[in-house]
Amino acid sequence: MRGAVIHAPGDVRLETLDDPKILQPSDAIIRTAVTCVCGSDLWPYRGLEPIGEAHPMGHEYVGFVEEVGSEVTSVKPGQFVIGSFATSDNTCANCRNGFQSSCLNREFMSICQAEFVRIPNAQGTLVATDERPDEPFWPSLLAVSDVMGTGWWAADAAAVTPGSTAVVVGDGAVGLCAVIAAKEMGAERIIVMSRHEPRQTLARAFGATDIVTERGEEGVARIKDLTGGIGADSVLECVGTAQAMQQALYSARPGGNVGFVGVPHGVAIDGQELFFSHVGLRGGPAPVRRYLPDLIDRVLSGRINPGKVFDLVLPLDRITEGYRAMDERRAIKALLTP
Amino acid sequence: MRGAVIHAPGDVRLETLDDPKILQPSDAIIRTAVTCVCGSDLWPYRGLEPIGEAHPMGHEYVGFVEEVGSEVTSVKPGQFVIGSFATSDNTCANCRNGFQSSCLNREFMSICQAEFVRIPNAQGTLVATDERPDEPFWPSLLAVSDVMGTGWWAADAAAVTPGSTAVVVGDGAVGLCAVIAAKEMGAERIIVMSRHEPRQTLARAFGATDIVTERGEEGVARIKDLTGGIGADSVLECVGTAQAMQQALYSARPGGNVGFVGVPHGVAIDGQELFFSHVGLRGGPAPVRRYLPDLIDRVLSGRINPGKVFDLVLPLDRITEGYRAMDERRAIKALLTP
Repeated sequence: MRGAVIHAPGDVRLETLDDPKILQPSDAIIRTAVTCVCGSDLWPYRGLEPIGEAHPMGHEYVGFVEEVGSEVTSVKPGQFVIGSFATSDNTCANCRNGFQSSCLNREFMSICQAEFVRIPNAQGTLVATDERPDEPFWPSLLAVSDVMGTGWWAADAAAVTPGSTAVVVGDGAVGLCAVIAAKEMGAERIIVMSRHEPRQTLARAFGATDIVTERGEEGVARIKDLTGGIGADSVLECVGTAQAMQQALYSARPGGNVGFVGVPHGVAIDGQELFFSHVGLRGGPAPVRRYLPDLIDRVLSGRINPGKVFDLVLPLDRITEGYRAMDERRAIKALLTP
Repeated sequence: MRGAVIHAPGDVRLETLDDPKILQPSDAIIRTAVTCVCGSDLWPYRGLEPIGEAHPMGHEYVGFVEEVGSEVTSVKPGQFVIGSFATSDNTCANCRNGFQSSCLNREFMSICQAEFVRIPNAQGTLVATDERPDEPFWPSLLAVSDVMGTGWWAADAAAVTPGSTAVVVGDGAVGLCAVIAAKEMGAERIIVMSRHEPRQTLARAFGATDIVTERGEEGVARIKDLTGGIGADSVLECVGTAQAMQQALYSARPGGNVGFVGVPHGVAIDGQELFFSHVGLRGGPAPVRRYLPDLIDRVLSGRINPGKVFDLVLPLDRITEGYRAMDERRAIKALLTP
């Protein structure tokens, strides 16, 4: 089969790889319907994360079940399935608590920009749709498996409630999906920090009520202006840099909450500053599995359309162009069709 | 009047000070019924916090109203009142959100180890009892104004729920009051980290079910042993050191919560570590005013008796002995009677 391999910063190639095989009775093999490039794939692509030996890339997928191991009874060959970047048995104590992305048997996916993918913990990870969804739904269902699930988690961790004010830090695919989530959870005011016109337009289409282009101290002052001087009830940090975290913490009101979902790179939080801010803080890899049934329903009923974050569609053969377009911020997110 | 003044580390003296006067129409003057020494008073006493010029000490008080400013209508001379170490107008946006200790007009108290005290923001800060409480209730009502309110906040910030497992880090007066709070909020299992026999005994009397004497990695391993391998639902960090915060974060399960109420000294939290822990974190100065009516009821109905943390009672004249006994850990907390 064909699959993407990263060799060095800026060097991702589509190569011929061995077809995946069932290795454990809890595995499934799926034929990829659509896959994509993630913002987090850019960390190694940009040389900001060590690559080590050349290795396959990708952790987002939806597809058709090809084969299942002997222990897998929840999905069967031919079904269309959605999963998560973190696999989970969905039975351990952490899964039962709703934190499937901390499953005691978790395996992170890392080989999904390919024609076929082996899914460990398939029984607990994959959710099948009742019928084969029409192709126009595929991008949104793919988004649910990662960026939409992560945006939902940002809003959940930041405790967005009906009538509240939410600030979204970051206008990437996750930040834009976080706007959808805040809107669905009833936030009355949704302020997005963005300097990119096309992303601002999409943010407004998803429900943003205000756009703030300032950053740093000016950005914080602008948020305070918009929130009666005290800050926002909820702040959804969707970047992962020290600057974004600072922006988030200073934008929340005393008693407010920051949900942080961008993997932190070089972020340290001062204990005394956090203390006197009275801000609650929770982050982590999104427990996508918890949200899947609900988010799939919202997509298939037409209520949300997170697939709009894919503003570039390419055949898998042209994956290098997808990486390049995202690296150069010409595209928000690239969809790949095998 | 007589009041305590700190001159240098280890040097607290009772001196003659000017009687306080109404300075603002929102002030009240109270005659102290009882006051006490706080664990946080030991930071400057031990030379771990700069002292600067000699200044009065103390931020815990209950007493009788002597005089009120022209704007104060909620309490009147002669009434027994309980307040908080942080004054609040109880009308600003932060107060209305329940975070009175972030009141936009907050003033921290700092002159309460004295016979008379001026209370700014008296209208929003002081709560009067219906009748003059009997003297045996005074220590518990004094505790409510700070350590019990702070212990309650620790349990609240750590989201203790009925049937849950809570870990209390710290066996000082706040930690012991946090045990009371966890018990009142329905925690089924309350694990206290303590190495001091008399404090362990009091912790058990307050509702602790388990005592852990180990610290560091061994302490974390012991907590994991006691919590099905995953950690506790709620951890109440009642110390404020880097070691205690580390202990707290490692003791909570994925999806669990840490409430941290000891003022952090030298605490930095690694963003990526917090991210992958899936632990929620909230701290700050306790919004005691929010809890006062409820906690006063619990004390006067005999349901809780946090005044037991005062294991040393001294006349105000002997305040230096109170500091010394707490510094040397011979006393948990010293009550002072003017």
